[in-house]
Amino acid sequence: MSYINENFLELQESYLFSTIAKKVANYTQEHPDKKVIKLGIGDVTRPIVPACIQAMHQAVEEMGTLEGFKGYGPEQGYDFLRKAIAQYDYHARGVDIAEDEIFVSDGAKCDTGNIVDIFAQGNVVAITDPVYPVYLDTNVMAGRSGAFNPETGTYEKIVYLPVMAENDFKPELPNQKVDMIYLCFPNNPTGTVLKKEELEKWVKYARENHAVILYDSAYEAFITEEGIPHSIYEVEGAKEVAIEFRSFSKTAGFTGLRCGYVVIPKGVKGYTKQGKEVSYHQLWNRRTCTKFNGASYIVQRAAEAIYSEEGQKQIKENIGYYMENARIIREGLEKAGIPYYGGVNAPYVWLKVPDGKTSWEFFDTLLQEYNVVGTPGSGFGPHGEGYFRLTAFGTKENTIEAMERIKSKGC
Amino acid sequence: MSYINENFLELQESYLFSTIAKKVANYTQEHPDKKVIKLGIGDVTRPIVPACIQAMHQAVEEMGTLEGFKGYGPEQGYDFLRKAIAQYDYHARGVDIAEDEIFVSDGAKCDTGNIVDIFAQGNVVAITDPVYPVYLDTNVMAGRSGAFNPETGTYEKIVYLPVMAENDFKPELPNQKVDMIYLCFPNNPTGTVLKKEELEKWVKYARENHAVILYDSAYEAFITEEGIPHSIYEVEGAKEVAIEFRSFSKTAGFTGLRCGYVVIPKGVKGYTKQGKEVSYHQLWNRRTCTKFNGASYIVQRAAEAIYSEEGQKQIKENIGYYMENARIIREGLEKAGIPYYGGVNAPYVWLKVPDGKTSWEFFDTLLQEYNVVGTPGSGFGPHGEGYFRLTAFGTKENTIEAMERIKSKGC
Repeated sequence: MSYINENFLELQESYLFSTIAKKVANYTQEHPDKKVIKLGIGDVTRPIVPACIQAMHQAVEEMGTLEGFKGYGPEQGYDFLRKAIAQYDYHARGVDIAEDEIFVSDGAKCDTGNIVDIFAQGNVVAITDPVYPVYLDTNVMAGRSGAFNPETGTYEKIVYLPVMAENDFKPELPNQKVDMIYLCFPNNPTGTVLKKEELEKWVKYARENHAVILYDSAYEAFITEEGIPHSIYEVEGAKEVAIEFRSFSKTAGFTGLRCGYVVIPKGVKGYTKQGKEVSYHQLWNRRTCTKFNGASYIVQRAAEAIYSEEGQKQIKENIGYYMENARIIREGLEKAGIPYYGGVNAPYVWLKVPDGKTSWEFFDTLLQEYNVVGTPGSGFGPHGEGYFRLTAFGTKENTIEAMERIKSKGC
Repeated sequence: MSYINENFLELQESYLFSTIAKKVANYTQEHPDKKVIKLGIGDVTRPIVPACIQAMHQAVEEMGTLEGFKGYGPEQGYDFLRKAIAQYDYHARGVDIAEDEIFVSDGAKCDTGNIVDIFAQGNVVAITDPVYPVYLDTNVMAGRSGAFNPETGTYEKIVYLPVMAENDFKPELPNQKVDMIYLCFPNNPTGTVLKKEELEKWVKYARENHAVILYDSAYEAFITEEGIPHSIYEVEGAKEVAIEFRSFSKTAGFTGLRCGYVVIPKGVKGYTKQGKEVSYHQLWNRRTCTKFNGASYIVQRAAEAIYSEEGQKQIKENIGYYMENARIIREGLEKAGIPYYGGVNAPYVWLKVPDGKTSWEFFDTLLQEYNVVGTPGSGFGPHGEGYFRLTAFGTKENTIEAMERIKSKGC
């Protein structure tokens, strides 16, 4: 008799985006004359830049010829891409990451999800609250969460690190020992960042406690201010305790192409129950060779083109476009007298819901009175309650119009 | 202190392909004048067919325009592809599979590897011996293998089903209860197949024992004989007990493009410890939504093009090319008086090593005396000892030359 992985039964169904879709559909049906503007989604809208398009056409051509055809590639990614990543994303910032410490994949969601395979089931996991749900759900599936408490909206064994206006969205060190710490900066959903000295505190904690930091820097390309680390490896000592996830999804609009990478320096160690040190690099390499067969050659060629001179220029234009939207949102909220956070080094603006309303009440007001759609903060965790996320991934015209509506009526 | 998944330490390093590469490199260095022909690899060599190339160029173009750009797609795959799969691979064979029972992925290696997530750790796993190593290694990682016994070359808790000339390469039903049964037909590495009535016996076993069959039919496109099931769902009752893996890798040369799919009919159930039925379809859907973000849009368009009239014609030409190589290999072995199996409904020919040599001894003879490279059967499991795999994925010219050498000298 085949038994199921019962940890899956502890997963809570997320109705966040389906509820949003339903509410929007109902409203639109009742008010067909209204133009509803959506600033809720986390997906990009600008097309793939010409440098990448050209690289893909060329790669497609190659695949159609006997001489150019590529079969199975290296599971860890082609050297041409690992080299470009090492050089431009790390060496250029003074960070010494070797090419073979980089594992190219079909996206950061897969990497942040699959990474749980190499850890023991008994590890204690810390996540921020609110949080990108993948970190939590994949650990629930792996049996690290314990039972869900519907009253608190939290799992028994997960250590939650609240991030909120009161602590300036800087998670505090846990007051119990944790083994795996998920940090995402620039943060989704809050759009806030950590300065280098704040990140240092986490690296110090991890070193002292032999913990591992799982650092998601998928949004690093949106950083506009100096002094904000793009990589956790800018912090001394991080190479012994941190695994870093990167994505081309937001950087270059690859959400539909699928490419990202994870960096596991060889010095990051875990332990057996008997106290023997084992390199996570070696475990992940084995996992990759056994359960993965490399990202698509065509997409890896597109990713390589991001690092060309034109590629860099072109993707920066797109990022600039989105960050101008973020500025428009911030300015609009400013004028409407609504407190907000983020949106300076990230494509997300996290606003404090006015008048003591809940996130969902604000959602309804915004939809019905202003015809603007955003994402209720409570959908990202209990400490997201009272907050609301707007994204900069819409068109400029729609973003301006949405903020005009909010400003003119006052919220 | 972060602990590792210690199951990984039970994995046995496979030196199969690295040892082959080293031996070939040494030989070539010592004999630079010799032309070594490689019939060892499992990767294709024919380029991607024009129908797919054209579809990819078009998809690349779309991605470069504001109107055509596609961001996140459905995690389970685009409807256009799921529909084509359902229609051509199943409905056309009289098999009733719904579109939403098909999950498009970045390849069958990932699917056969990741599927272990949805099962309980305590399930007893049965695999054939010899076997495609992914089924075994992923279950070792998941903690289902127990300890490795170096004397027998087997794991304590795994149930091995020998396939060898003595049983006509038909695995016998296990004489202890098993919960998860991996079957791959047409088989890698033996190239042999099961007839419908032989498969029926497995479906019957699974139904009676509430076991699940994990059926890998990655090579179904190479079947040339009537009466050999292309899908396990051709067997009545299989829809309640079987999960089927399919790949475009060998069918259409997508090894470097990355696309495959898994079929999980909604009727396939697992059980909680308390005996409650749970649909594996539902668990896999949740796993897919949490840890995967869809296959690349461009590659899904290429896969769709396989099902067009031209696409079908073109891929069949490539398959015909490889199967002509298989015929040449079989004919050569026949003339050399070497017993062989497979190669009629699969691109692999599994030969019985003559003169009581071991697989590796034969490898050395073949390399040194005939300058032909193949794969020692013992690399696929203990019951592969004494066998040897040749693949039909080389060029026709090289295949002819390799077999001429073997025939002329006699083995």
